[in-house]
Amino acid sequence: MLHPDRLFPADPGTRAIARRLYASISDLPIISPHGHTEAAWFAKNDPFPDPAQLLILPDHYIYRMLYSQGVSMHELGIRQTGAPDSYKIDSRKVWRIFAEHYHLFSGTPTRIWLDYEFEILFGLDQRISAATADHYFDVIAEKLQQPEFLPRALYERFHLEALSTTDSPLDSLEHHQAIRESNWKARILPTFRPDSVVDPAFQGFRENIGKLGDQTGEDTSTWPGYLNGLRKTRQRFKSLGATATDHGHPTANTANLSPQESEKLFAATLSGNSSPEQQELFRAQMLTEMARMSIDDGLVMQLHPGSFRNHNQKVFEQFGRDSGADIPTRTDYVHGLKPLLDLFGNEPSFTFILFTLDESTFSRELAPLAGHYPCLRLGPPWWFFDSPEGMLRFRELATETAGFYNTVGFNDDTRAFLSIPARHDVARRIDCNYLARLVAEHRIDEDEAFDLAQDLTINLVRKAYRL
Amino acid sequence: MLHPDRLFPADPGTRAIARRLYASISDLPIISPHGHTEAAWFAKNDPFPDPAQLLILPDHYIYRMLYSQGVSMHELGIRQTGAPDSYKIDSRKVWRIFAEHYHLFSGTPTRIWLDYEFEILFGLDQRISAATADHYFDVIAEKLQQPEFLPRALYERFHLEALSTTDSPLDSLEHHQAIRESNWKARILPTFRPDSVVDPAFQGFRENIGKLGDQTGEDTSTWPGYLNGLRKTRQRFKSLGATATDHGHPTANTANLSPQESEKLFAATLSGNSSPEQQELFRAQMLTEMARMSIDDGLVMQLHPGSFRNHNQKVFEQFGRDSGADIPTRTDYVHGLKPLLDLFGNEPSFTFILFTLDESTFSRELAPLAGHYPCLRLGPPWWFFDSPEGMLRFRELATETAGFYNTVGFNDDTRAFLSIPARHDVARRIDCNYLARLVAEHRIDEDEAFDLAQDLTINLVRKAYRL
Amino acid sequence: MLHPDRLFPADPGTRAIARRLYASISDLPIISPHGHTEAAWFAKNDPFPDPAQLLILPDHYIYRMLYSQGVSMHELGIRQTGAPDSYKIDSRKVWRIFAEHYHLFSGTPTRIWLDYEFEILFGLDQRISAATADHYFDVIAEKLQQPEFLPRALYERFHLEALSTTDSPLDSLEHHQAIRESNWKARILPTFRPDSVVDPAFQGFRENIGKLGDQTGEDTSTWPGYLNGLRKTRQRFKSLGATATDHGHPTANTANLSPQESEKLFAATLSGNSSPEQQELFRAQMLTEMARMSIDDGLVMQLHPGSFRNHNQKVFEQFGRDSGADIPTRTDYVHGLKPLLDLFGNEPSFTFILFTLDESTFSRELAPLAGHYPCLRLGPPWWFFDSPEGMLRFRELATETAGFYNTVGFNDDTRAFLSIPARHDVARRIDCNYLARLVAEHRIDEDEAFDLAQDLTINLVRKAYRL
Repeated sequence: MLHPDRLFPADPGTRAIARRLYASISDLPIISPHGHTEAAWFAKNDPFPDPAQLLILPDHYIYRMLYSQGVSMHELGIRQTGAPDSYKIDSRKVWRIFAEHYHLFSGTPTRIWLDYEFEILFGLDQRISAATADHYFDVIAEKLQQPEFLPRALYERFHLEALSTTDSPLDSLEHHQAIRESNWKARILPTFRPDSVVDPAFQGFRENIGKLGDQTGEDTSTWPGYLNGLRKTRQRFKSLGATATDHGHPTANTANLSPQESEKLFAATLSGNSSPEQQELFRAQMLTEMARMSIDDGLVMQLHPGSFRNHNQKVFEQFGRDSGADIPTRTDYVHGLKPLLDLFGNEPSFTFILFTLDESTFSRELAPLAGHYPCLRLGPPWWFFDSPEGMLRFRELATETAGFYNTVGFNDDTRAFLSIPARHDVARRIDCNYLARLVAEHRIDEDEAFDLAQDLTINLVRKAYRL
Repeated sequence: MLHPDRLFPADPGTRAIARRLYASISDLPIISPHGHTEAAWFAKNDPFPDPAQLLILPDHYIYRMLYSQGVSMHELGIRQTGAPDSYKIDSRKVWRIFAEHYHLFSGTPTRIWLDYEFEILFGLDQRISAATADHYFDVIAEKLQQPEFLPRALYERFHLEALSTTDSPLDSLEHHQAIRESNWKARILPTFRPDSVVDPAFQGFRENIGKLGDQTGEDTSTWPGYLNGLRKTRQRFKSLGATATDHGHPTANTANLSPQESEKLFAATLSGNSSPEQQELFRAQMLTEMARMSIDDGLVMQLHPGSFRNHNQKVFEQFGRDSGADIPTRTDYVHGLKPLLDLFGNEPSFTFILFTLDESTFSRELAPLAGHYPCLRLGPPWWFFDSPEGMLRFRELATETAGFYNTVGFNDDTRAFLSIPARHDVARRIDCNYLARLVAEHRIDEDEAFDLAQDLTINLVRKAYRL
Repeated sequence: MLHPDRLFPADPGTRAIARRLYASISDLPIISPHGHTEAAWFAKNDPFPDPAQLLILPDHYIYRMLYSQGVSMHELGIRQTGAPDSYKIDSRKVWRIFAEHYHLFSGTPTRIWLDYEFEILFGLDQRISAATADHYFDVIAEKLQQPEFLPRALYERFHLEALSTTDSPLDSLEHHQAIRESNWKARILPTFRPDSVVDPAFQGFRENIGKLGDQTGEDTSTWPGYLNGLRKTRQRFKSLGATATDHGHPTANTANLSPQESEKLFAATLSGNSSPEQQELFRAQMLTEMARMSIDDGLVMQLHPGSFRNHNQKVFEQFGRDSGADIPTRTDYVHGLKPLLDLFGNEPSFTFILFTLDESTFSRELAPLAGHYPCLRLGPPWWFFDSPEGMLRFRELATETAGFYNTVGFNDDTRAFLSIPARHDVARRIDCNYLARLVAEHRIDEDEAFDLAQDLTINLVRKAYRL
């Protein structure tokens, strides 16, 4: 199914350049500085469950498409909130439904990733369909029990150099601890993602603040105690290898309140009576506080704004968060980030990586901002846009203003561990596609393109994430 | 003038694939589920008038361009509001002006459509110019009198399988009735377009509500009577073959008011003293009511938002609506549609087709929404964007997130009946162009591309519009 | 370093067409109707200073990129506000820093322009680097002392037909005067740019109004006297050859106030107590006043909206305006321009050229507006977007709706005089690239493409700017 020239430009001359470039980087190690795999997999090193539970249930890219075409969440085996512990899915049935609907993925990156996994990891090279569903299921299920498909073996097979998870400040990080204490020499790093304790609209916010206090021995009902609790937790993450924080706010708004104003606002959010405007202002102020702490402790800061979470009310009520119904919205970085940038935009020791779900901002806001402020870098195309067309648009929209060196390489951003090599392969091929076009049009020289291919694949990510 | 490879990619390998794909679909019937032709043409089957009245006066794509370059509306023969019945245009003079300015259309889809009409329908294969203006006029004028250029003959020659018009609820649909009662076996279907009775800002809104009452025997001065009047009218449309409704709102806002609130708001709009905010809220609520009725009666719902109508005040005052001065505006679907989607977004029997004039929403809002909600489908690129570049952008921006199967084929959306084959030909060629690129880059296999070409041309439209 | 086929499409057939088109226009004169060179250079005809002061310090495209990657403004020799008169930069050191960081410009237009200047103007054809920095510096420094590198000699060598500067109404235009009084037959024209006297937020606004009164003998503390002062100054510019005005507002808002309202608002702005909203309304009204004056005196009006000026507070405080920290913002033309267009949109004698920093408006707002209103024309892609990809996007997004003939050719918009031929060369190559694609895809014929290439290069600019 996989053609060696896939994702390269069709023009034969340009394709030949892309092939040469790709050959020089295809075997480089994978650095995955931002994703959603689970440290527990690597701590325990148990076999992954069956194909449906491994590949379909956790991947909202897949089930949102099936759902959009009338396959119900129940048919897909998605666990309803409050389902009894005895709830079990019929994995083979779910797998068959998926296989029958495989044509829905034509033209999507999901299709490219899955074909890669099927062929490269499992040796399955006939396109999956209703007819081959059971064969696929059996082959994959059997392989998943073999030692070379255990999480640690796959980490090594994937040639991973570093793999970052995303973790709540309330997480004990026991699995990260366990990995470090084992004699397995891998680099699996936590990332500090404090949404649950900095966003007053987050379910359980007040309880979470209390837990943060318990964990850190700080009185987090006071503003200084709360900040100290966060500081200490960041230190805890750092001591287990974290090099970065990540922030999933609805907007890119930041604020610069006085300590007195912050203190008052914090009290209001804790009272449980805060207005949406106060909650937004608090989130905005907390981005600024996080930036201040980053300058102190050296953690790289990432901002992923602009997702309208849980847009489908009924699906949210029945199936909870992260059920494939998060929708991008318009985002304003220019006004939103100004308070933070006024304070820290020129700090040489600060690295602040911006992502977007609003592609109209790439050329209008993000590339101009990153092409000026020393602290800013552009994250790769994210979520719906880590796709061939999305990646090409990113390069075409951002490079001319921000250059290549204000970008940070690729993030796979995935909870689908098996898709990591596939996703990095797509990113590498598309970068070579873009570079080849620049060479063919004599906009850069071929020797530069070879250097750039190395930089885009490993050097920029190592540097930006301090790995 | 027409090259057999027009609109195919230049790369020879990719072009060869496009050619093969196009050969497999070029002869398929045309399904036109959304447009603005007139049922009267087919009911009466009179010859079309002269070239200028047929091709130029009703086509605001053409005369807006001429107007933008200094040709006055008077020179173009556009009828001024309140002109005496005796008003007559000098068609040959208008035609000559058009011919002299034909270079203005270089690079526009209008040029591609017209060349197709001139060459394929009228056998004129020298580019039109001042020198050939009269020859063109004479040839076309003469042919229009021949039996094979009568409306019904053209319908058959165009290989139309279905042709939908767009009609006011106040329309008697007598011509649709007449067509059905004739023994001509064509499928010409009305579409329920209620803007004039659901938009309080529509000229004559209150009178229209009264007429709706007269027509349906309901007391439309009450909220329940008004809703009943709409329900009955939808039934009347359905009985004459309608399968869809269409809604031309300025925004994508929807609402979910209680019956009491709706009743009060309706009374306010009828009072003639409603504020712009109340009018917007009423339109928003009416989209939700229309969705509710669609679930009951099975009519597919289409939303065409985002046009600032009659932007040019002086042109509007002198020449009325639809004079080429409607301008797209920014549109927010994510927040706007939420109230309606909260109610009906997961209804399996509901089909809701979204269009846009704001291309930045394709990847940011529309593809993510349609790639999740079971009721949603993406309409094709509309109005200014049903062009080669516009169609390519649509596929590039939407496919990776929504796939092909959340789209609904092509709409020609035209009042220029003779341009229908030309417009569908452009759409087919561009789809083959896009599919050929995916094949050449090994993103899909060629066998899939053949299936997709069929689906995009006939299967998706039949299914989405229940034809 | 420069390949003869640079910026042409890679496909050999399309490239051959692009080559033929380019050969037909590459030697045409350069018309530069909008830029920021200084009349004093040509009045005095002194040698340009050293390479760093000529090429780096005045070019915020260059130093913003270096700054974004951690090179400090001090290292770059940027003059701090209030620096003593004795402040001197170490030009060779600045040049070396620039050369060491040259890889940062890979993939940016700056790189393309500089390579052109180095090779074509200075005969340097090894890529600049740390190793060649001194050689470059010495060669350029030496050449700049030669007679053929004096400003007037370069004007002639560049084959300039007209070159417009941008000037404050408070400028004496003495250098323009001097050029006209010399016996040098060149066409260097001022442009009326009144931001400093129509924008109440402009530093020194009230003082500037006073100076305008002194200069014109009008009592500019009254609304009629102020308008008269502006009218007279426009006349003064016109008498020195100006054919255009330019307006750099933060938004595209216009207004249509009564004289009484305007008078009151003017008084408020002069009081020094005006609110931001009043200031915005005043700017909006002044665009309408400028349009009214344009209809009277025939000056072409240009609007460059949407830049958030001096976004970096610390850099602004230390280094002043125009320090590379202006960031584009979202712009609304459809609502913003309506008051002005309601008044003057249909005036045949009025030419109003619109630019944007928000590319999402090209297809959504600007092309539909320019494709209808007789007064409107689309300026070329501006600032961050006068780049290969930016220019291609402009053609792809605007042409299908506005055609080619509602555009006005290229603006180099530069203060880097030596980059003018390079910038026009890029524009010509990209236009040929785009036209070649249209020909290769049989969307236009090749004979038309040759005509269009001429029009895009010289005819449209001459006509739009009345040159």
